[in-house]
Amino acid sequence: MSHLLSVDQFDIQSIADLFALTEKIETAPRGTYKVASSSVLTNLFYEPSTRTSSSFHSAMARLGGSVISINDVSFSSVSKGETLEDTIQVMAQYSDVIVLRHPDKGSAARAARVSKVPIINGGDGVGEHPTQALLDLYTIHKHKSLDQPLSIALVGDLKHGRTVHSLLKLLRMYDVQIHLVSPPGFLMPPELTQTQDVWHRDLHGCIQDVDVVYMTRVQKERIQDATLLQQISNYGISLELMQLARPDMILMHPLPRVDELPTCLDADPRSKYFEQTGNGLLVRQAIFYSLFGMPIPCWRPVS
Amino acid sequence: MSHLLSVDQFDIQSIADLFALTEKIETAPRGTYKVASSSVLTNLFYEPSTRTSSSFHSAMARLGGSVISINDVSFSSVSKGETLEDTIQVMAQYSDVIVLRHPDKGSAARAARVSKVPIINGGDGVGEHPTQALLDLYTIHKHKSLDQPLSIALVGDLKHGRTVHSLLKLLRMYDVQIHLVSPPGFLMPPELTQTQDVWHRDLHGCIQDVDVVYMTRVQKERIQDATLLQQISNYGISLELMQLARPDMILMHPLPRVDELPTCLDADPRSKYFEQTGNGLLVRQAIFYSLFGMPIPCWRPVS
Amino acid sequence: MSHLLSVDQFDIQSIADLFALTEKIETAPRGTYKVASSSVLTNLFYEPSTRTSSSFHSAMARLGGSVISINDVSFSSVSKGETLEDTIQVMAQYSDVIVLRHPDKGSAARAARVSKVPIINGGDGVGEHPTQALLDLYTIHKHKSLDQPLSIALVGDLKHGRTVHSLLKLLRMYDVQIHLVSPPGFLMPPELTQTQDVWHRDLHGCIQDVDVVYMTRVQKERIQDATLLQQISNYGISLELMQLARPDMILMHPLPRVDELPTCLDADPRSKYFEQTGNGLLVRQAIFYSLFGMPIPCWRPVS
Repeated sequence: MSHLLSVDQFDIQSIADLFALTEKIETAPRGTYKVASSSVLTNLFYEPSTRTSSSFHSAMARLGGSVISINDVSFSSVSKGETLEDTIQVMAQYSDVIVLRHPDKGSAARAARVSKVPIINGGDGVGEHPTQALLDLYTIHKHKSLDQPLSIALVGDLKHGRTVHSLLKLLRMYDVQIHLVSPPGFLMPPELTQTQDVWHRDLHGCIQDVDVVYMTRVQKERIQDATLLQQISNYGISLELMQLARPDMILMHPLPRVDELPTCLDADPRSKYFEQTGNGLLVRQAIFYSLFGMPIPCWRPVS
Repeated sequence: MSHLLSVDQFDIQSIADLFALTEKIETAPRGTYKVASSSVLTNLFYEPSTRTSSSFHSAMARLGGSVISINDVSFSSVSKGETLEDTIQVMAQYSDVIVLRHPDKGSAARAARVSKVPIINGGDGVGEHPTQALLDLYTIHKHKSLDQPLSIALVGDLKHGRTVHSLLKLLRMYDVQIHLVSPPGFLMPPELTQTQDVWHRDLHGCIQDVDVVYMTRVQKERIQDATLLQQISNYGISLELMQLARPDMILMHPLPRVDELPTCLDADPRSKYFEQTGNGLLVRQAIFYSLFGMPIPCWRPVS
Repeated sequence: MSHLLSVDQFDIQSIADLFALTEKIETAPRGTYKVASSSVLTNLFYEPSTRTSSSFHSAMARLGGSVISINDVSFSSVSKGETLEDTIQVMAQYSDVIVLRHPDKGSAARAARVSKVPIINGGDGVGEHPTQALLDLYTIHKHKSLDQPLSIALVGDLKHGRTVHSLLKLLRMYDVQIHLVSPPGFLMPPELTQTQDVWHRDLHGCIQDVDVVYMTRVQKERIQDATLLQQISNYGISLELMQLARPDMILMHPLPRVDELPTCLDADPRSKYFEQTGNGLLVRQAIFYSLFGMPIPCWRPVS
């Protein structure tokens, strides 16, 4: 089965294959690949995420497919007294692929165990969000060669960020020097770090050395502790820091942003965060293309 | 006009025609019948039912059509100070067919009187839900010949179940021995019963004799009376009862289930409730095919 | 860029071009023009308007395109701590055109400044709603020649009605005698009036003279003052007034209606309000056709 649950299902070769397919789609005239014609995607979102949902929706539509959007299942009649497993088995009858967003870690794996159609993990709580990590990596790939040594700063709340954890897993496959830049209360979990990583209290320590700055969103609403809140407030990038950065550095952010990424940087050609969002559409098209237009997808089956 | 409001619009011949069309669609390669291309369905749901809405949505998409989903109209701007008749006349301007779900019995007939496009009754309160009854019958037809004598047990809350009432109407057209299995507070309404029906207090009385067991969902949230609630709680099927049943019996349930249908039965090949859900997609495709791909649909006009 | 923000972007010639295209679409067999195939519309509605949203949705679907529906953004995850400008830049990555509905006047212009895809103003508070004015004018055009002198009564709350303000701007391009019919507390703003306009306290003053009666909806819920509320209550058209009107007069209303337009008039062949709603679908198809099927749209660029 072709479920896509984790970045662990990829290696360097399958990523290269997926990115080659992504570029093929990117450069073809619109409407060239109608491989999902007559196919139906169900976006099954137990917590709303209009942004992610819309990106998958558009990707499916561009390949000729249709989309059933179920947002905020927890308030809908789908979940009334029904287990995730039952809901999946019902929606699998109506769909050719299901993108599942769910607050519980491991929910995508539970869904995959009972589904007769491919499950794509669209975020399972503190677990994974593999397509976000892949679109981040694709953005780096578009501007920097992954075959050469790279230097990348991950900045901000590195403790809670699912996005940055999955991206880091992918970056470990390549020759990348990692700079971990965060306040003391927001350090990357030790099990994800390696001895050659460089730790910084703020971006001044490495901004001039890196090829990529990857900012994370500060989710203030989730932080109760006043001391921690003060550490992370205004912990961001600035015009002054951008002036210290390399002319070919690229600046990324998964969006939406709060104060950590001022809008005055939007005009800087090194700012790639809106392009990054657009790359999500392309990578997700490549994923659906893998499912509907190829004998087997490029990623490994779930073990 | 081609409104589909009630199972009363069908007879044995038109059901045979609809099921022949359903099987034609079931066995054809995906994308063979694009008869709804450029057509628009509006799912107009005055009470949310994501499951029914998704099934109609997918059926329309599989035939090449598009879908406008309006869920929970009562909270939407559609209904603001507007009668059902006005809303229908507006939405009929934008649509080629409307599936209406509404809490009031007779609402689908009211809609049909003013609509310039076909209305499909997707459930009108305690009234009817004809496509559900048709998909139930199609599931029986797939596993048992409707041309031979059959024995069918209807189990659970037979008093309030719109689903089971409509199905019973259809079953009366065939040579079917009906077993009515319910606690005393949940009996089938007398006007729907016939003298040759057999009544049981529980499934032990007939499980070994029947070709089909049709379970109903217990809607505990609608039951106020403690005595009644106790009667119906745990009134279901079990592994032990399944061992008494025939090897070629089929077990059905409209889903979602609560306690009356334990998940340990899912692996039993006689359990057909997920297939039943999938048959809903097929029957609804046949209904849309009747509307968009044929000169006239197989069901009788509304009288 | 091809943004459509205001009726000011049109002149007599471009309106004639748009209406010629509208008639071409109206008379062609369904599915003739699939110019939006593989294209994606995002309906980005910061306040819900299922009616407007559905009309644009159906227009896009009829031309072969797909639709992402985001209703009530204010409660969705799209807007969480995010500016309109950021949301637009993200959704523009996923879409080929965005219809924006927003409570703030000028919001569509703000969106257009940052969007890489066309923005269609679907109503910006007390600002404009240009496609509504165009469909109103198209309805007049279908029944009355805009090349001849016309006499038109605008009736009801002329003070707050965005719809009637935009329509009036368009009517000024033609040889039209305007009758302004409203209670004293609901007068047309002076800056929109001209000296040759005729003012009336009620329809009796002009009903026998006019080619078109354009009723407005009374939004009682927005009126606090009891005196004003009394002025506008029951300020509508009636069977008796219709008997005084010309046999070839046409009666229009943007819907939904409240008491000002009794349902007993629906059977009168002069009542065109449901057709008017249907014309919205046609005009919006012509607008999307202009964007996806022609080298440049017929309206002027935003200055």
